Amino acid sequence: MEKDDILAAYKKVGGRIETKAKVKLTTKEDFALFYTPGVGKVSMHLAEHPEEVKEYSVKKNSVAVISDGSAVLGLGNIGPYGALPVMEGKALIFKELGNVDAWPIVLSTQDPDEIVRTITAIAPSFGGINLEDFKAPECFEIERRLIEALDIPVMHDDQHGTAIIVLAGLINAAKVVGKNVKELKVVIVGAGAAGAATAKLLHAYGVNDIIVTDRTGLISKGRTDLTGVKQQLLDLTNPRNIEGQLEDALNGADAVIGLSGAGRMNGEHIKMMAPNAIVFAMANPTPEIMPDEAKAAGAAVIGTGRSDFPNQINNALVFPGVFRGALDSGVRKITQDMKLAAALAIAALVPEPTAERIVPDILETSVVEAVARAIR
Amino acid sequence: MEKDDILAAYKKVGGRIETKAKVKLTTKEDFALFYTPGVGKVSMHLAEHPEEVKEYSVKKNSVAVISDGSAVLGLGNIGPYGALPVMEGKALIFKELGNVDAWPIVLSTQDPDEIVRTITAIAPSFGGINLEDFKAPECFEIERRLIEALDIPVMHDDQHGTAIIVLAGLINAAKVVGKNVKELKVVIVGAGAAGAATAKLLHAYGVNDIIVTDRTGLISKGRTDLTGVKQQLLDLTNPRNIEGQLEDALNGADAVIGLSGAGRMNGEHIKMMAPNAIVFAMANPTPEIMPDEAKAAGAAVIGTGRSDFPNQINNALVFPGVFRGALDSGVRKITQDMKLAAALAIAALVPEPTAERIVPDILETSVVEAVARAIR
Repeated sequence: MEKDDILAAYKKVGGRIETKAKVKLTTKEDFALFYTPGVGKVSMHLAEHPEEVKEYSVKKNSVAVISDGSAVLGLGNIGPYGALPVMEGKALIFKELGNVDAWPIVLSTQDPDEIVRTITAIAPSFGGINLEDFKAPECFEIERRLIEALDIPVMHDDQHGTAIIVLAGLINAAKVVGKNVKELKVVIVGAGAAGAATAKLLHAYGVNDIIVTDRTGLISKGRTDLTGVKQQLLDLTNPRNIEGQLEDALNGADAVIGLSGAGRMNGEHIKMMAPNAIVFAMANPTPEIMPDEAKAAGAAVIGTGRSDFPNQINNALVFPGVFRGALDSGVRKITQDMKLAAALAIAALVPEPTAERIVPDILETSVVEAVARAIR
Repeated sequence: MEKDDILAAYKKVGGRIETKAKVKLTTKEDFALFYTPGVGKVSMHLAEHPEEVKEYSVKKNSVAVISDGSAVLGLGNIGPYGALPVMEGKALIFKELGNVDAWPIVLSTQDPDEIVRTITAIAPSFGGINLEDFKAPECFEIERRLIEALDIPVMHDDQHGTAIIVLAGLINAAKVVGKNVKELKVVIVGAGAAGAATAKLLHAYGVNDIIVTDRTGLISKGRTDLTGVKQQLLDLTNPRNIEGQLEDALNGADAVIGLSGAGRMNGEHIKMMAPNAIVFAMANPTPEIMPDEAKAAGAAVIGTGRSDFPNQINNALVFPGVFRGALDSGVRKITQDMKLAAALAIAALVPEPTAERIVPDILETSVVEAVARAIR
């Protein structure tokens, strides 16, 4: 669809989600029960028994989808209003796929302290916090501090949702090309939120030969400019200590996972890889390399984040189930073991993967239940 | 209904509101349009044209119903979880009566600076801010600072929603007892958020003989303990400078408006008033005096905030229409003139008031439209 048609479709509905009453409010008796005086009894009960709040309120099933607009899709720092359509779209998917009541919240601040304070302040209303499109490296600290501060599950989906679906896709892509997933030489393009978390989760699963690249080049021991998470990645990745640029890492690689931005790769890159290359080009909305170009260059299995190509390796397959499971079971922290279990559960939904089908379709209702079960 | 039945009814639904998709999300094409890649075009458009955000997002029709739980109904400072059922109930009413998509947000802080910072930070997501159940005197400063800081309408409903519906009710109650509303001797019990705002709005309408009481006694020139809003009220109220306690003000009064707490009045108080007394006992959920006791003591017109008695003088008649009107017209500030117009519009919906019907029923659909028109 062209841009004008897309804008017209959005303008027609105004917002893609709305609120809806779950109780009847048509008689005075309804008002007396579900508003005043009835609500006073519930308020007093929860004042005395705050631990029961989820049983009597929206906190039971609600998630805030929060962004500061600092790293929206592959579009960059486009601020809260640029971020709002994405958060609203995630809230829509939360409801339609996971029956989670999510509300989009975009912030007028990009200061980590302010962000942590703000989310801590509004947390009592929600059963979970889905952080979205916060830029690295601030996103790591923001998520860590919120997980420590809050008694509800907090997940930065760009990190963990992405890592989970990439691992699921990679397990099945390796099957398609007849290679052992743990022995794959994997190159991750991008050391932002998604790249770092994906490297960590693949490593936790047992993939040993991972090389991560950032704009400067390969993350390798010779670099003197690495701090924070990139420094941590040195311990988990690049065991052969390859130095240089993307091309140096791609030489003979089995899989490349693009988690960076539009057009960062071309056919020449793919041709450097080992035979039967696996190419995940996940930048949204425009991939690192378009699928037809990757295919022409010899890639055997190709995935993107988009709905209009085969193999949609999108965290929309993950986040509804993660929060569905966490809300249902009262899970407070999403652990690395849960993430591994979720990835395996998604991969298992496609027992006989093919080049055009390594992950389940986003429309398959079994996905949410499988992920939720893994979290529980 | 008994407390156990009420709790059971709430527990059965979990939350009284949920989210709902306004677009179809059943095919891959739907995902491509309303999520990725389509949403990227809308995000880019809003990054370049942030002034159009309301046309393409939930900001068009959304209101945050926010409380810090410091003054919940007449129940006091019962914290965020005690407040949540009330905020959720207001969100329910916003949708059912005003077709406004409201989401309840309760805060883990009661510090005014933190509250202003937090609400400023989350404001980009919303088309309006309904403040609720913040205690006085902090509520005045919080509302003032947010109105200055934000480009969307902000209203502390305990103040202005209450003031509007009291004025509407008083205009029609005066008709019922055959008195000139502007010449009524009015006593307001309670100098909190609602009491102060009601005194101001009645005065702006032209009611001159208003006396406001707080826990210490009548607000009068002899008091040395008055600060802030109570100091301001000295200029607008108590023209005869009556000193002393509630009884001193009620002696010969035409109307008493309870905006304080349960059981603050009894039949003896009503008997001190002038013949054909007007009694609004608006504390929720338990009024200052129950209607039957007021009637037995001679009151001619009696109103409460509750749905289970006649004359429900409840701001639920006001807030859906105020925000409906403000959202539709892009009004950024709710002015005193708009509030007066809203009160007159509500009063005019009952052209021939009786002792049992001075305000429209909460179920009458004409109310929201009349208030919205007054705001526009």
